[in-house]
Amino acid sequence: MELPTYTNYPSSYLKEFTAKVFEHFKLTEEDAWQAADVLSKADVRGIDSHGVARLRSYVDMFSIGRINPTPKVKIVREKKSIATVDGDSGLGLVVGPKANRIAMDKAAEYGSGWVSVCNTNHYGIASYYSLQALERDMIGWSMTNSSRIVVPLWGAERRLGTNPISIAFPGYKNPPIVIDLATSVVAFGKIEIARRQGKKVPEGWMIDSQGNSTTSPEDVYEGGLLPLGSTRELGGHKGYALSAMVDILCCVLSGANWGPFAPPFALFEKAPEQSVGKGIGHFFGAMEIDGFEDVDVFKKRIDHWIEVFRATKPTPGHDAVLIPGDPEREAEAIRSKEGVPLIQAVVEDLTSIAKLTGIPF
Amino acid sequence: MELPTYTNYPSSYLKEFTAKVFEHFKLTEEDAWQAADVLSKADVRGIDSHGVARLRSYVDMFSIGRINPTPKVKIVREKKSIATVDGDSGLGLVVGPKANRIAMDKAAEYGSGWVSVCNTNHYGIASYYSLQALERDMIGWSMTNSSRIVVPLWGAERRLGTNPISIAFPGYKNPPIVIDLATSVVAFGKIEIARRQGKKVPEGWMIDSQGNSTTSPEDVYEGGLLPLGSTRELGGHKGYALSAMVDILCCVLSGANWGPFAPPFALFEKAPEQSVGKGIGHFFGAMEIDGFEDVDVFKKRIDHWIEVFRATKPTPGHDAVLIPGDPEREAEAIRSKEGVPLIQAVVEDLTSIAKLTGIPF
Repeated sequence: MELPTYTNYPSSYLKEFTAKVFEHFKLTEEDAWQAADVLSKADVRGIDSHGVARLRSYVDMFSIGRINPTPKVKIVREKKSIATVDGDSGLGLVVGPKANRIAMDKAAEYGSGWVSVCNTNHYGIASYYSLQALERDMIGWSMTNSSRIVVPLWGAERRLGTNPISIAFPGYKNPPIVIDLATSVVAFGKIEIARRQGKKVPEGWMIDSQGNSTTSPEDVYEGGLLPLGSTRELGGHKGYALSAMVDILCCVLSGANWGPFAPPFALFEKAPEQSVGKGIGHFFGAMEIDGFEDVDVFKKRIDHWIEVFRATKPTPGHDAVLIPGDPEREAEAIRSKEGVPLIQAVVEDLTSIAKLTGIPF
Repeated sequence: MELPTYTNYPSSYLKEFTAKVFEHFKLTEEDAWQAADVLSKADVRGIDSHGVARLRSYVDMFSIGRINPTPKVKIVREKKSIATVDGDSGLGLVVGPKANRIAMDKAAEYGSGWVSVCNTNHYGIASYYSLQALERDMIGWSMTNSSRIVVPLWGAERRLGTNPISIAFPGYKNPPIVIDLATSVVAFGKIEIARRQGKKVPEGWMIDSQGNSTTSPEDVYEGGLLPLGSTRELGGHKGYALSAMVDILCCVLSGANWGPFAPPFALFEKAPEQSVGKGIGHFFGAMEIDGFEDVDVFKKRIDHWIEVFRATKPTPGHDAVLIPGDPEREAEAIRSKEGVPLIQAVVEDLTSIAKLTGIPF
């Protein structure tokens, strides 16, 4: 099989193109640039599956009128530090930052702020939001559900999304600790890559349509991904429970479509038979560090934490223990200089979007 | 090898004995019964490692004066919905409930309450605290660190405790969803059981002193437990990141001893060379459901969630998909009728405590 070809593009170029595409679909200039910033952050941090590679799906959704370009994101219920927010069927990349700002503003007033969001859709990378909180000397939390692809432990049917959790803690001299993890064993993208390369995947990643463990990537289309922990013996009930937690905080609390009812993001995915709420859901949290401890004292303790963990004796075959966020920061250092490598299929997608919208690429 | 013998005791009998032992060590009657209630809850819910089996270790700590029997648990810093609490070196089973009450009282006032606690010690089962929040129509969160036994991914040295996360959501007609999971692959107790039975443990649970994967339980004493996910391929970096999150929220935020510096709970465990804070740490959270949604509407949605997940087609060899909290609730149903089965070694421990304190057992 052929190796894929990549072309490097400066992230600022991709961001501008993205913003203009969103403007073409009637977003305000401010919202369009905000949305482009979220996708761009994913590209720069090396999370290719969540960057401009997704622009095609967003464009499809706009084309069929599934996204409201000018949503009125509003609080529908609140009590001081907590609120439920309705995203008015807006772009997740617009609703997310607005709802996260509500959480952070509440934190500035009440020490912490927690917002459960319904009537929204795919919001990009979870860590975009937790990183925003750091700019205000807060600890940031972010979660979202997504359409069904993951089975609960001992289940042979997809019931959950990859439901990520992100939380970020600022360092003093060190860069922040940025946790951002899907509660499934792996992202769906890894199965896709193996399939394209004609490779098997490791045992413990997925099951087939009958619920049996499988290593053939094509089985995922009728089967599903396993939750973090894979099997009962290795703690698969824990990954399932964490995914359930995300599902409930994002959706059951806000009135969004939970579990198997989450509407799909891409047009080719089959829609669930039933709707139990509005759109998908997110959950944002922010806690003001200063309410717990002097900000600088906390940040210096984080530095110490990072240094102690980095100094851990590594296992044979590895150079060092990583700190959560290291791989993404490394990608950011390289890509902000060398540009973002796009696979040919994505370049073609963007070219077709250019044709459709008349925005040069 | 011999199978262990068990004797059943009514939980009320064990609880009364425990309370009297704590009173013997100068706790107030109220605190003693509170502490006994936490241990009793673990026994009744089938989490044997966290019930009266631990009384020996608490007694040891009292005997050497490491626990303050009459702590003044106080808020040392706060801002509306958040606070740092100092446990004044009290029993974790007393400090935990008091700190959790602070979080819940804040939630009643500000919609949510979040408390990071230092200068405390082992607090029992994490779900004791999240379950308390349900009684006030709140969503309860609870986390704690513990002494080092878990390695970070790619690390050959213990750096973290089993650092559990608990969160609970109330149902309407259904019992609550109760998530309570250690962020390691398995609890240390499972390795102990395998060792006593002369059995190997599954691949993916632990490493030896050199950082190599091992299935010989005795290797754990110089090696360590792996984080949830076990290997890079199966998501071990995620379990490590979740454990880091717990460590930071409980300890770095409050000024407790984080990571490898957590003081040991049992006397036979080696104390860390260095202290970077006060005691170990907990983190409690509570969110008032009513600030997000009508309480009954939310609870009925949880019922629906439970019913849909229970109805998932099971994988071959399993009867049904479980709901988080099912196994503990089942144990509770049996043990509240038939009593708590204690292994002979624990009965002997309690008998020796009876001799030491003069409290009949």
